[in-house]
Amino acid sequence: MTVYLDHAATTPLRPEARAAWLEAAEALGNASSIHGPGQHARRLLEESRERLAAVLDCDAIEVVFTSGGTEAVNLAVKGLWWGREPGADAIVLPDGEHHATIDAVQWLVGEGAEVRAVPLDTHGRIGLDAFASALPGAALATALVANNEVGTVNDAAGLSAAAADAGVPLHLDAVAAFGHVPVAFQRWRGTGPSRGGLAALSVSAHKVGGPVGVGALVVSRTAKLAALVHGGGQQRGLRAGTQDVAGAAAFAVAAELAEAEREDEARRLAGLRDRLVDGIRNSVPGAQLLGDPVERVPGNAHVLFPGASGETLLFLLDRAGVAVSTGSACQAGIPEPSHVVTAMGRTDAEARQVLRFTLGRTSADDDIAAVLAALPEAVERARAASGPRPAGGS
Amino acid sequence: MTVYLDHAATTPLRPEARAAWLEAAEALGNASSIHGPGQHARRLLEESRERLAAVLDCDAIEVVFTSGGTEAVNLAVKGLWWGREPGADAIVLPDGEHHATIDAVQWLVGEGAEVRAVPLDTHGRIGLDAFASALPGAALATALVANNEVGTVNDAAGLSAAAADAGVPLHLDAVAAFGHVPVAFQRWRGTGPSRGGLAALSVSAHKVGGPVGVGALVVSRTAKLAALVHGGGQQRGLRAGTQDVAGAAAFAVAAELAEAEREDEARRLAGLRDRLVDGIRNSVPGAQLLGDPVERVPGNAHVLFPGASGETLLFLLDRAGVAVSTGSACQAGIPEPSHVVTAMGRTDAEARQVLRFTLGRTSADDDIAAVLAALPEAVERARAASGPRPAGGS
Repeated sequence: MTVYLDHAATTPLRPEARAAWLEAAEALGNASSIHGPGQHARRLLEESRERLAAVLDCDAIEVVFTSGGTEAVNLAVKGLWWGREPGADAIVLPDGEHHATIDAVQWLVGEGAEVRAVPLDTHGRIGLDAFASALPGAALATALVANNEVGTVNDAAGLSAAAADAGVPLHLDAVAAFGHVPVAFQRWRGTGPSRGGLAALSVSAHKVGGPVGVGALVVSRTAKLAALVHGGGQQRGLRAGTQDVAGAAAFAVAAELAEAEREDEARRLAGLRDRLVDGIRNSVPGAQLLGDPVERVPGNAHVLFPGASGETLLFLLDRAGVAVSTGSACQAGIPEPSHVVTAMGRTDAEARQVLRFTLGRTSADDDIAAVLAALPEAVERARAASGPRPAGGS
Repeated sequence: MTVYLDHAATTPLRPEARAAWLEAAEALGNASSIHGPGQHARRLLEESRERLAAVLDCDAIEVVFTSGGTEAVNLAVKGLWWGREPGADAIVLPDGEHHATIDAVQWLVGEGAEVRAVPLDTHGRIGLDAFASALPGAALATALVANNEVGTVNDAAGLSAAAADAGVPLHLDAVAAFGHVPVAFQRWRGTGPSRGGLAALSVSAHKVGGPVGVGALVVSRTAKLAALVHGGGQQRGLRAGTQDVAGAAAFAVAAELAEAEREDEARRLAGLRDRLVDGIRNSVPGAQLLGDPVERVPGNAHVLFPGASGETLLFLLDRAGVAVSTGSACQAGIPEPSHVVTAMGRTDAEARQVLRFTLGRTSADDDIAAVLAALPEAVERARAASGPRPAGGS
């Protein structure tokens, strides 16, 4: 029986989403076909688009379904780059973004893009002033709504307003935020200039109990965006390919449920998280909660264990039946220091001594008890394996 | 009760694929996570990759899962372009390719690519000599294994050998061929020069009874290919994003079944198709089968009805409960003449007077009887709606 505390990597499929997938998968017909079965599939698809749009506070036509968060981020960053104003070659890239964004931008550097970095504060938050001062004349800006590693929530409305003031298109990566904190495209977008401001917003289904392999990019009507995947002209020409009706239906159902439960779940998960963090502090000398203590994703506890390798801890906890992460799952397997933690002013050594515990829909008291039972010994052993304790480590 | 004769647009999900999807979707854990649940998901994924590779005659490491055929084609065409040799800017593009390829190439023209067109013969086949003479010095070449509209099967081994001789990387679009005719990556690739020859091959799950939203690009170890979607480094760095374990499992099961049944199904569907084509010829004056009469996808009957609008026919048949297509589903809804049919030397008018009937796993005698019962009157009415019959139309 695994104690699963890695809900930010992926969270179990909701039964209602599975049922919606199964029902829609039985619909015969390609949603691009004009005969009866095709139009039936199309209606299912467009109904799902409308339901997801209602959750995201946008219009249905603004929802572009993708194969997941990573494709949505790539479409946003590369699409806005290819659709940029002539002469605007800079991308405003805060430190500590998800690797989907970093790697997409890095590839664009090979295509001629310049990067304007924006520092994080010690809690992992994007500084609004630094962000605003990096904007003038940029091709685009991108920012996380909530940091996927340390859970710190940024001021999405403030970032959007700054981008609108500067006339720079903004992509918000809401993959880690969606389902946990409010995500509201049109409210954040406001009534700013048509080209600048919030232009696109990424979300993923499997982070809210939908299936893996489905995501969406909200794209404002006025955004100038090139497609990443060309072909049959589906979805405003922004994302070609036979549309995944079953995936869209399952995503819409999962998103509605996540949003309906969000406030209650936030309270419940914050309570579990506080119990976890208090328990760790009481039983593990020197452990420190990283990220913003208040403005964070409720189910996220990101903890520094000075003197203990995060990788070693992960393995020891895994052997004790507790699944956690050292950071983004996408980077797991590569024992590198977390770029988010170093961006918060920590050393490389500290950035290798962190664990991310993320709670979700199926998390309960027993999970907290189990991890608190296993953790002190694991930290002791990891510290012993790392040799002498560093000064100030306890 | 719909008579569904549009299996090339999408074919029903196989029960065994649905079961595999459901089972794998219950697996907790992101396949990139290094804890136990993650590694369990990873094993399911890699087992599916191996099973699909066995069907495609390639190594597991050569299989890059994508969100479908269109993404696979885009990754191949754009990826090979971005990975091209300096100074090689031409793309060898036969006439009559799928719109995923055409539109991807068209976008690359804006990035500096030149197009070298290759004509089709009157049966819709890519001429080997013309193809070979277009190759020297090109950045890449692309070709359909089987044409998705008229069903003509190309000489994939011959195209691959020509590309190997010229040292030019080749992408084969096997989306319409897979499951219907042999598809054999390593056999076609042979032992040619490492860089030239068959470099990539696209397939899609929902064309063989797997779910929509899943596909794969086979990429040879020696191909130089840039990613379309960057991020966590999954799949040899060629396609980032949380991997869709359930989709991959369902695809592998569907592909194995399609391949196991292929020869028997080819005989059965060719028999049904011949009955359909003979019936049409006997009941509809002037109707002509287009595409190669022998070297074609067994379940495809592509018919020219001189003097009758294909769009009108489609609507009339749909009202009679018969679902067919005028061509690629991806272009349906836009009443344009088929670019494949015009590439075969037909007029624009003729290219608007075609219907594609495609049979599949669930097709039976009753379907043929139903379409033959509805078609003559539909053609009469469509011809009447189009005004006087053109000269030579019967």
